[in-house]
Amino acid sequence: MNIQNFFGIELPIIQAPMAGVQSSALAIAVSNAGGLGSLPCAMLTPESLRAELAAITAQTRRPYNVNFFCHTPAVPDAARDAKWRSALAPYYAEFGIDPDSVSAGGGRAPFSSKLADLLEAFKPPVVSFHFGLPSPELLHRVKSWGAKVISSATTVAEARWLEANGADAIIAQGLEAGGHRGLFLSEDLTTQVGTMALLPQVLRAVRVPVIAAGGIADAHGVKAALALGAAGVQVGTSYLLCHEATTTALHRAALKSERAEHTALTNLLTGRPARGMYNRLMRELGPLSGAPPAFPLATSALMPLKAAAEKLGRDDFSSLWAGQNTSGCREIAAAELTRLLAAN
Amino acid sequence: MNIQNFFGIELPIIQAPMAGVQSSALAIAVSNAGGLGSLPCAMLTPESLRAELAAITAQTRRPYNVNFFCHTPAVPDAARDAKWRSALAPYYAEFGIDPDSVSAGGGRAPFSSKLADLLEAFKPPVVSFHFGLPSPELLHRVKSWGAKVISSATTVAEARWLEANGADAIIAQGLEAGGHRGLFLSEDLTTQVGTMALLPQVLRAVRVPVIAAGGIADAHGVKAALALGAAGVQVGTSYLLCHEATTTALHRAALKSERAEHTALTNLLTGRPARGMYNRLMRELGPLSGAPPAFPLATSALMPLKAAAEKLGRDDFSSLWAGQNTSGCREIAAAELTRLLAAN
Repeated sequence: MNIQNFFGIELPIIQAPMAGVQSSALAIAVSNAGGLGSLPCAMLTPESLRAELAAITAQTRRPYNVNFFCHTPAVPDAARDAKWRSALAPYYAEFGIDPDSVSAGGGRAPFSSKLADLLEAFKPPVVSFHFGLPSPELLHRVKSWGAKVISSATTVAEARWLEANGADAIIAQGLEAGGHRGLFLSEDLTTQVGTMALLPQVLRAVRVPVIAAGGIADAHGVKAALALGAAGVQVGTSYLLCHEATTTALHRAALKSERAEHTALTNLLTGRPARGMYNRLMRELGPLSGAPPAFPLATSALMPLKAAAEKLGRDDFSSLWAGQNTSGCREIAAAELTRLLAAN
Repeated sequence: MNIQNFFGIELPIIQAPMAGVQSSALAIAVSNAGGLGSLPCAMLTPESLRAELAAITAQTRRPYNVNFFCHTPAVPDAARDAKWRSALAPYYAEFGIDPDSVSAGGGRAPFSSKLADLLEAFKPPVVSFHFGLPSPELLHRVKSWGAKVISSATTVAEARWLEANGADAIIAQGLEAGGHRGLFLSEDLTTQVGTMALLPQVLRAVRVPVIAAGGIADAHGVKAALALGAAGVQVGTSYLLCHEATTTALHRAALKSERAEHTALTNLLTGRPARGMYNRLMRELGPLSGAPPAFPLATSALMPLKAAAEKLGRDDFSSLWAGQNTSGCREIAAAELTRLLAAN
């Protein structure tokens, strides 16, 4: 079954939830254009989440998706935190930041019963998760109001696990994709493969609809993914320059430059591997490092550095999330981009 | 134009040249089945090359491809060689190998006028290169007997360069591919992207036929690549278990095991990044290391270790080249695999 029928939408396009570079405006625009707009919720307070859901339901009657992380929060570990601060010490000195003023912690909370309470008032038609699925009880609650539940698989084993544990559809997230790798059964990056390798294998392994993600940036990519047998596609990076995205000026400038051709997986910015454009921190510490603490505890210690560098117009410590194919980025309205992606 | 018309073959399938795991037998089988069989020549002596060409021309009247490397041979560097031997010293001790008995050097010679002389007697209809193109003079000679010249691009910039410098068709080599990355304009691995990201961009950038490679393992993958606009595909990994391949028993066993799901790019085995299954050397030294000397000078120092370990049934130091999609490997005749790949 294609995702148009599955979700009740017009076009085979899901706009990928992208925390930090979008709010409800992008989701609303995509849903109103006939795709499935997504709201990234992992970094929202409950109050912001409620306000965003109110905005979406006021501005579209079409289906939309809300996305949550469902990691097990790491327990702070003084030794690992100290190691991380020691790796960052030269930067604190360079930017005149008192290390003692820097707070620990993460800032990304997993899905919870409190969030389910909040969601229930809105009954979002699609709820997507990253890093697996929440507990069976929470999953049952979400499904009880009729929501379709989807999650990302980065390996065949993860796809099988998601199907066995109640996912209604599965996103096959190829290695090209920007942002956090969804891997959750293993931390072994040697298992991570490109969309052309992953998608056919996942399609053979499960019976639920499979959505292709990773490297799909334009109508040709959409057509190829559908030819492979995908029920639809999820596209993130191409939306980063859209009018409705909240992508920062620094991030936009990097995307429009030659730097957009240089990405890597890095665990420096959050503690988990995520794909972004290469920047100073990645170059100097190595993009995959033993220095940062577990997800999401790496982030707070970077915040004052990020702020100080950005004040100087530098993205040395910024999360410049992007996939390997930035050729589809357009400074246009998201509705137009959505239609272009589906123009086959 | 599709590669069937371009090369005068029946099926849109090129069997990737794979040095170390095949000889003329695989190429002959694929060409006779209607694909384009390829002979990897980088590790052949002139005498072996002549014998292999004689075998091919005796056993098929169909088009075939001969593949050469065209790197600039690295100048031996005593300091780098010493660093490499020092990294390997614990292994020499473990296997009782006298380090002084280990010879330096590589064993992969680039294309040359001497090789062109040898080729000219056979006038192979297709000549493919890895790591760019040979000198304009050599390229002119190859083309003078009517050969079509193809080479691999791993970035849009490389595709443009190849077209500008005389390639008749271009292989877009996605990051999923096994064996050596063809990158030649830069050594920067942050430029390397998956097939789903690379292929559409290369198709837009050049006018010559573009052949998709990387992660394509079965008829679905072939169909998707053609849907993207590729003129044909190049498939390597799926042929590794074919009867005609000379893949070692150790390599075959790894491909049939769970280990086939774990690959990485490594520069340890030759000095240039190549994708293979994860093994002990990669795990212990890190797959991308500053220790090995420049390509192809890393290889000789490993040879006695490889031999000693393989005698014990271990692949600790072996090149287990494989792409990210090993799901298409079949223990069948190469002709049958070729037809299966093209069965759309």
